[in-house]
Amino acid sequence: MDQLLRVQNFGVSSDGIGAGEDQSLESPFGHVEPEKLFGWAGATASWLMRTGPGGSRGLDDYFIRDYARNIGAEIMGRNKFGPQRGPWHDHEWQGWWGDEPPFHTPVFVLTHHKRPSFTLSDTTFHFVDGDPATVLQQAREAAQGKDVRLGGGVTTIRQFLDADLVDTMHVAVSPMKYGTGIRLWESPDELLDRFHLEVVPSTSGVQHHLFWRK
Amino acid sequence: MDQLLRVQNFGVSSDGIGAGEDQSLESPFGHVEPEKLFGWAGATASWLMRTGPGGSRGLDDYFIRDYARNIGAEIMGRNKFGPQRGPWHDHEWQGWWGDEPPFHTPVFVLTHHKRPSFTLSDTTFHFVDGDPATVLQQAREAAQGKDVRLGGGVTTIRQFLDADLVDTMHVAVSPMKYGTGIRLWESPDELLDRFHLEVVPSTSGVQHHLFWRK
Repeated sequence: MDQLLRVQNFGVSSDGIGAGEDQSLESPFGHVEPEKLFGWAGATASWLMRTGPGGSRGLDDYFIRDYARNIGAEIMGRNKFGPQRGPWHDHEWQGWWGDEPPFHTPVFVLTHHKRPSFTLSDTTFHFVDGDPATVLQQAREAAQGKDVRLGGGVTTIRQFLDADLVDTMHVAVSPMKYGTGIRLWESPDELLDRFHLEVVPSTSGVQHHLFWRK
Repeated sequence: MDQLLRVQNFGVSSDGIGAGEDQSLESPFGHVEPEKLFGWAGATASWLMRTGPGGSRGLDDYFIRDYARNIGAEIMGRNKFGPQRGPWHDHEWQGWWGDEPPFHTPVFVLTHHKRPSFTLSDTTFHFVDGDPATVLQQAREAAQGKDVRLGGGVTTIRQFLDADLVDTMHVAVSPMKYGTGIRLWESPDELLDRFHLEVVPSTSGVQHHLFWRK
């Protein structure tokens, strides 16, 4: 079985915007409100951050519960890890996720600036500088035969798409427009030369876009 | 987290028929052709019986690859295990699946006739006589905290539905009618007093019916 590189549960607006350009500690997604972009996910029974009982077990839940299945490592961009830019001035910042990050695998954070690896619970963060193919090779080795999740953000997904390294991609398109921000695509049709696409509407209002390599 | 009892990837015709009444060694589903009822599943990349590469990674594949996720045991009716009726005259028959059954967990086969447990690869078959609640309790203990799959056939699912023990159910409804056979329902609406229902059409032609307890 091949080791796939998978994008999962990535949220964009109907005009293709997945994050604002004005990220800060208080606003990880800038002017894009994550509660709108990911509201469909938070309503599911299997949502990783769910603290109470309940939640739907319909279509949306299938996407959420596939999150960890057969994943052995994640690759993420620096801006998914934190709002800092440039050299790491201190190592106090350990990501947005507290003492129990939801990854439970090695995570490779793309950055041009050196920083030692560290471990929180069963997630180890490595800081790596390299082209997408090299970083993917590192992540595949760490994944020990399992798939690798490409965790975002938008810029990171674009880099790996441009390098033609993405095998499957699930993007949940929400029914609002932002006009400005960091854009995954002008239209999903841009990818049809290389990918199959199924679009599945959900009762939650999002349109699940499922891509897999031709 | 609760241990759910889950029906997964169960196939019926648009008139609710999941098997013929004329089961035999040559025709496990009687006059119902499994290649029609389960063609959607066989076309997916994650289909358990897939021997070659390829296959779709769209919506249908999500249902197929959820098959083993967090499942610790299966309960099945005797007719899913084999075409024999009455006492077990010999123990040569070990199911339809060869030396590597696709379950990889303990499997509890409902039968009124005693037979010793046996193991094939990492699947152990137990033969149990009891009401649905008692058998479910046995399967939950064997599942060690994971969910239990209710594997069918139709009669077994009906028994557990009637005992109100099913937590989630995925039924793939194919666009053909049989008229006669073993019927899961006259209409899925019969279950709406107890279950939420989402119906998701697939490009393969099946309508995925997703039920979860209210």
